[in-house]
Amino acid sequence: MDIQLSDVIGHVAAFLTTVSFVPQVVRVVQTKSTKDISLGMFLLMASGVTLWLIYGLMIMQWPLIMCNGATILLVMVILYYKLRYK
Amino acid sequence: MDIQLSDVIGHVAAFLTTVSFVPQVVRVVQTKSTKDISLGMFLLMASGVTLWLIYGLMIMQWPLIMCNGATILLVMVILYYKLRYK
Repeated sequence: MDIQLSDVIGHVAAFLTTVSFVPQVVRVVQTKSTKDISLGMFLLMASGVTLWLIYGLMIMQWPLIMCNGATILLVMVILYYKLRYK
Repeated sequence: MDIQLSDVIGHVAAFLTTVSFVPQVVRVVQTKSTKDISLGMFLLMASGVTLWLIYGLMIMQWPLIMCNGATILLVMVILYYKLRYK
């Protein structure tokens, strides 16, 4: 199996799962409506992504560190709106 | 750095980010209300997680394969409800 191809796919995958939170952030900021969003989902996601970041720091993998750092910020915005405008 | 500890943290991180979708699935199934959920988020997430699964298959990493396989199913349920009950 071509390692370089798998690396490209892994990086595109990481980029997509990270930026996927952007449209949700835009939506909650614009609408300030979060009734249908699960608080549990974003609390678990914040916990998991924080551990991914710690994992990335432990093995010093910069793509993991950057993607999960960005994801934490996006998830925190969603959580802030969920808790403020529930 | 202790490799075994980082492996444990990575596995717990993968478990948390995977199961984080469960409360959102429960919520959309119970309420059939998906107005506040971003279609863009879950389309991008489905694309990214599919690539993560392909990446996991290319490097034959069973934790990646299982977590992303499970996540795809959960995200698909949310997308189904989003498209059906928008």
